[in-house]
Amino acid sequence: MQEQNRTEISSLGEFGLIKHLTENIKLRNPSTRYGVGDDCAVMEYPSGKQILATSDLLMEGIHFDLTYVPMKHLGYKAAMVNISDIYAMNGMPRQMIVSIALGKRFSVEDMDDFYEGLKLACDSHEVDIVGGDTTSSLTGLAISITCIGEADKECIVYRNGARETDLICVSGDLGAAYMGLQLLEREKAVFNQQTAEAHKKGKGNLGTEFVMAQPDFSGKEYLLERQLKPEARRDIILALATADVQPTSMMDISDGLSSELLHICTQSGTGCRIYEEHIPLDYQTAVMAESLNMNVTTCALNGGEDYELLFTVPLSDHEKVSQMKDVKIIGHITKADLGCTLVCRDGNEFELKAQGWNPLKV
Amino acid sequence: MQEQNRTEISSLGEFGLIKHLTENIKLRNPSTRYGVGDDCAVMEYPSGKQILATSDLLMEGIHFDLTYVPMKHLGYKAAMVNISDIYAMNGMPRQMIVSIALGKRFSVEDMDDFYEGLKLACDSHEVDIVGGDTTSSLTGLAISITCIGEADKECIVYRNGARETDLICVSGDLGAAYMGLQLLEREKAVFNQQTAEAHKKGKGNLGTEFVMAQPDFSGKEYLLERQLKPEARRDIILALATADVQPTSMMDISDGLSSELLHICTQSGTGCRIYEEHIPLDYQTAVMAESLNMNVTTCALNGGEDYELLFTVPLSDHEKVSQMKDVKIIGHITKADLGCTLVCRDGNEFELKAQGWNPLKV
Repeated sequence: MQEQNRTEISSLGEFGLIKHLTENIKLRNPSTRYGVGDDCAVMEYPSGKQILATSDLLMEGIHFDLTYVPMKHLGYKAAMVNISDIYAMNGMPRQMIVSIALGKRFSVEDMDDFYEGLKLACDSHEVDIVGGDTTSSLTGLAISITCIGEADKECIVYRNGARETDLICVSGDLGAAYMGLQLLEREKAVFNQQTAEAHKKGKGNLGTEFVMAQPDFSGKEYLLERQLKPEARRDIILALATADVQPTSMMDISDGLSSELLHICTQSGTGCRIYEEHIPLDYQTAVMAESLNMNVTTCALNGGEDYELLFTVPLSDHEKVSQMKDVKIIGHITKADLGCTLVCRDGNEFELKAQGWNPLKV
Repeated sequence: MQEQNRTEISSLGEFGLIKHLTENIKLRNPSTRYGVGDDCAVMEYPSGKQILATSDLLMEGIHFDLTYVPMKHLGYKAAMVNISDIYAMNGMPRQMIVSIALGKRFSVEDMDDFYEGLKLACDSHEVDIVGGDTTSSLTGLAISITCIGEADKECIVYRNGARETDLICVSGDLGAAYMGLQLLEREKAVFNQQTAEAHKKGKGNLGTEFVMAQPDFSGKEYLLERQLKPEARRDIILALATADVQPTSMMDISDGLSSELLHICTQSGTGCRIYEEHIPLDYQTAVMAESLNMNVTTCALNGGEDYELLFTVPLSDHEKVSQMKDVKIIGHITKADLGCTLVCRDGNEFELKAQGWNPLKV
């Protein structure tokens, strides 16, 4: 949170703040008919289009930690995780409604930063911000985002369409966002310890006499970027359309590959076999896992927050997907009674389990 | 919160809880193509229809107080205030996405109660629950609801269409929800004081040795109902259509008549004159205001949470709206330079000011 040039939110009031944050928003999609400023946003889609809607509620201390997440990144990521859900249905995001509940510790400048990140994400994915609600919180920050999108009826991809022999594909690489989180949590712990020691030694208040040594993240930039600035894979959705590949099932990887793959198999009534050696990993992810004595495959399977796309395609599309940039085939769909199996490098086989992030166990 | 038959939410997990809460939901609207269970809900509206979307974020301690609001009523009201926003555009609500963040003090039974209220509201307004997100909160309960609806393009009513000489109309009566809130707050204060005194006298813990005297609400049932169980005015929207009346502007009264009327006048570029003697009041509201030494007109103007409809119609519709059940004409729209005026019973005139509920000043 910014301390300089601090403008109290109460000086603007609810409607003043909403006006301040939204007055320069330009609407770009023809489907957006009316944005911020009335009881509802108004949209009109061409006939033949189906409408997609998704909503996420993000809570401080559960989904984000303001100790190390700047407000601008928070806005960017909050928008991006919702945009990603629209792509996960093979649709295009078009509108967004943003509600925020915030306490007195936040300033107008904090909200400006948040909206700057939000708008950056919306700009790069051509999404209109069409509604907003700003209210108080007695405690932490709460962010609720609804994203609305469109798709041709015959193009929408659900989780339940995977069929035996389909190829299982993943975009990008996995586990890096989780490693980025570990890195930030580690630095936070070091910082907290240093602060506690400084206090013990009577070195006084944080921020004036005591300053945290700037952590050295060099060589780990990719991990931080994956955690703090995830990118929804519009490029993959466009590439699938260009290659004329219609996935049989798809979802985005927010809770971890294992958990998502089990959703697809459960809802499709199938099993699956994936191969450890084919799971896409970045070099930095492997190095960081090694330094933390963690198994990198476990991180890739269960880490979550990758916001990559997991999808299945008919076997006949093998050549097409093999040639797609940044897409890896990691296994195939099987009959349900064969279960969900990970085949390790050494040939051992394990049953896949959902050990991904469970927001209700925090 | 229920203490008997308490089932911990962690025993079900996130997906288990969502399944438990949503598995019996039946979809009724042809525009609903896919509900809970994928990355997005999917809808398809007939061509010519425009789509309305609204979202609200409700925070414990700001928007509701669980000391006196039962979970079932909370679910009902949370749904209703969003449904009301769709009617406020002269549309029909069709789908709802519900996200909840909750702490460990809540049980599965609490969530059952919340969903029971939610479903009751959705059933009576023919709304499908098509999506849900359930997550943790470190502190209070947070509820985010998005409601989606439809309207014929030419029927949508905005806030900015009021014109000079238009009649200003209000449904139902005003100020009762605010009086209900005062009543509940008063009983809470009495209860807290009794508890403190009992503790001082060493009478031990609440709930076993000390039991709050059941407050007597007889004769004030209407006030409580207006606060705890507001009803969105579908009947008025249907009556307007039947009478072939197309309002020139409309919104629902959530922050208070004054505040909403000023929104309409500002956005329409007009002024207004309303008459104190025509503001609809219930007998119980007047009695309660009297007993609290409050001016009942001030309560009606600034109380908020009425969820009645405020709308303007052309002067030529005077006869039609005069005959409409539960609709009162309270004044008319003027030129902007005449300002926004309240004409009192004694002939005095006052400028209308927005003193309604400001969620950022709490």
